[in-house]
Parts: sequence; structure tokens; C-alpha cells
Amino acid sequence: METLIGEGKTKQVFSYDSDHVLLRFKDTITAGDGAKVDIMENKGVINAQTSALIFRLLERNGIRTHYVGMYDERTMIAKKLKMIPVEVVLRNIATGSIVKRLPIKEGEIFDPPIIEYFLKDDSMHDPMLNYYHLEYFKLMNRKEAEVVESVMMRVNEVLRDVIRKMGFELYDFKLEFGRLGNELIIGDEITLDSMRVRDPKTGRILDKDLYRKGYDLKTVKEAYEEFLSKLEKVV
Amino acid sequence: METLIGEGKTKQVFSYDSDHVLLRFKDTITAGDGAKVDIMENKGVINAQTSALIFRLLERNGIRTHYVGMYDERTMIAKKLKMIPVEVVLRNIATGSIVKRLPIKEGEIFDPPIIEYFLKDDSMHDPMLNYYHLEYFKLMNRKEAEVVESVMMRVNEVLRDVIRKMGFELYDFKLEFGRLGNELIIGDEITLDSMRVRDPKTGRILDKDLYRKGYDLKTVKEAYEEFLSKLEKVV
Repeated sequence: METLIGEGKTKQVFSYDSDHVLLRFKDTITAGDGAKVDIMENKGVINAQTSALIFRLLERNGIRTHYVGMYDERTMIAKKLKMIPVEVVLRNIATGSIVKRLPIKEGEIFDPPIIEYFLKDDSMHDPMLNYYHLEYFKLMNRKEAEVVESVMMRVNEVLRDVIRKMGFELYDFKLEFGRLGNELIIGDEITLDSMRVRDPKTGRILDKDLYRKGYDLKTVKEAYEEFLSKLEKVV
Repeated sequence: METLIGEGKTKQVFSYDSDHVLLRFKDTITAGDGAKVDIMENKGVINAQTSALIFRLLERNGIRTHYVGMYDERTMIAKKLKMIPVEVVLRNIATGSIVKRLPIKEGEIFDPPIIEYFLKDDSMHDPMLNYYHLEYFKLMNRKEAEVVESVMMRVNEVLRDVIRKMGFELYDFKLEFGRLGNELIIGDEITLDSMRVRDPKTGRILDKDLYRKGYDLKTVKEAYEEFLSKLEKVV
């Protein structure tokens, strides 16, 4: 295989050609800024497939991503981007960190959705950033943030529709962006590690919150598999 | 005296007439979201005088504030505003919460300055807000935030100049805004409780950080008195 040029908590990056890299999805599942770590068998394959389906869906809807194709079942060929170490979060329904941080109740609906930026820095627990911080750290300027936010809103429309067709509801999701020349393009992944998806009738959780909340790995894996198999039917 | 209609950690608000209130500055000094509280003799007078001088200075520079005049030495007559429970902070030099929250070193210079919004909510430790949160909580819309930020920048220019004339440096300051009809006007106070002022040569602290850092009340009071007496000479 090609040379390892980077490794995160759940993915490895290998060199491929001058314009592309390979993204290999590991079976690692982590929570709490990496404090909790486990191996969930086949997770890398499930997440690579889930992400590929969603990236293809977005591309068909005119939204640019780094996705090029699959190298093997857990490895994606992707455009080589200069990644911006920021997580951009869009929230449709309140859950997770926002209900701990702000006087907002679990389940409150955000219409319009709320967008937040977090610096990827586990040691500082991913602090929230505003436009001034983004510029000071030379991460992105205000015009670029506006582009990022319009992409977030478009992705939300597309993803929410598809997830509703599957009988579920998209509570929130996180994207990471990278530069390709002067353009900002969606990189990283879109999986149940980076989205919150619930059954609106029963409140059943299908995403990584299962793992965060201490459910056994079998339950987590079954949810990820169910989501992927339903996604395959609707896209 | 008139009827007490509100009380905060350091000020009381009394009704006055249909368009005005009285703001009485108490001798209380507090830190850590109210966890640390003391009485610093005469502080109310010092802060009322300091704030009045600065409000008058801003008004002369075309910046609207709620200041009307003095009722007695520790009580201000102010326009009755509908206060927005948000602290707007402008930072010229890094110190305080930002160096704990973000990978930024004490003393780093922000050029342009950084502006941040915090919800006034001691129980949640004044969480940071972005424009989406400000709109969701119906605190202010994005256009109003732009107005607020241009006022912050103007205040910074005026205050920084005056404080430099006194031989000191303005590290950061906090303002609170209120509505008067359709306008957003500076309310609350501008004192050493809400600004950070240092001697650039010696690093000597003149502001409430003295109290936060555990200096005795005599040292704190002397700094507040020295600042006021120098301010009186330059404005």
C-alpha cells in the first residue's frame, strides 16, 4: 500500500498520486475527545460505504466534496485538500453539547438551523470559535465562512430529505472543509460518527450517541448497519 | 428615594421618571460569577465617577450612551433602556478567559481586535454566543450585531487613546447594550470592573484582575483611585 502520511482517531491517510490521497477507515470508535476508545468490527467498512453513498448523493445535488471513488471496501480515493482544522456543526434539533453549554432544552427545534464552529483541539476540548477567531487563527475569512454556511444549509436540505425517506430525523451533523486551490470543499467523512439520527416516533438513537451513552458494541454496530442498508435503498 | 426596580451584583436600579432610571453603584466587588464577594469602601463612588467621565467622553465623540447626568456622587441618571442580557467583549491584547479557552498565549496582540459575545448567565458561566445563538434567543439580529461591533470598535479607539495619554494600555473591555426605540445604545457601566488596564512598561495591573488574583482591597482601591484621578486630568 502507499505511504501513510497522516492518521486520526478513525482514519488513516495515504499518499496516492499528486492530486489524490487514500482515506482508510479504521474500525476504531472513540468518544470524549478520545478518552473512550474501542474496536467495532467492520466499522471502517460500514463508515466508508456510508460516507461514499452520501458524498455521491451530494455531488449529484451539485455540492462539491473530496470524494472520487473507492479503492477498496474501507478505503476512499479523495482529492488532496489542505484541511482546515475546524468542525462546522449544523443543528436542527437540540441535543449534545449545546444543551449543556446554553440554556436550551433537549429536543428544542432550531428553525433556521444553528451553525457553530469548533477548533479541532482535543487538549482544549474543541473550543467554539466565532468569525474573529477564525480570522485570527488564519483558518478562514468571513467571506469563506459565508460560503461554508451556505454549503452547510444545502447539505442539510439534501441529507434531511434522504434521512426522512428512511423514516428517521437528522438532528445535527458536522462537516470539515479543505482548500483545493481557491475553493473550499467538503472533506473528511459523513457518517453516524458525525451525524445524529433518531427515529422521530420512538426517539430511538441510531448514531454514535449509542456508544457515548454506553450501549454495547453489538447494538451500536446493528444501528450503523441498519442505517447503511436503508440508505442504500433510498439513494 | 425612588422605587427599587432591579438589582445586580454591583448596582441598583431605581425608577425615576417615564424615560429615565437611577443607577446606584454599590461598594460590592465580586469575581468568579459572584462566587467571591467583598465590600470595597467608596467603590460605588469611584466607579460611578469613572463611568460618568467615560460616558461623557464617548458622547463628545458622537457615541450614544444611556448617560444623562449625576443624581448624587454614586448615582447616575440614565435613559431607561430595554437591556440585552449579553456582554460584548473587545480584546486588544490576550489575557483572561480567552487564554484559557483557546490556544492563545497571554499578551498576544489582536490586530484587528477580537469581539466576543457572552450570555449573561452566571449559572451557565456566561457561555459564548455566535450570531445564530443571538438570533435564536431573540437577543439581536445580525444587522444589529454589526452595529454593535462598529460601536465597539469606535469606543475602543476613543478609550485606547485616552488610556494611552494616562500612560496605560487598554487590554480589553466589556459593554452591555440596550434598546431605546429602534436604537441600540450603550448601557450599564465602563469602569475598572469592565476593562483591563495595564502599565505597558511594568505590566502593573490597575483593574479588577487585582481582586481576582487575590490582592488586598487596599491595593485594589488605590489602583481604582489612581486611574480615576489620572482620567480626570486627561478628559
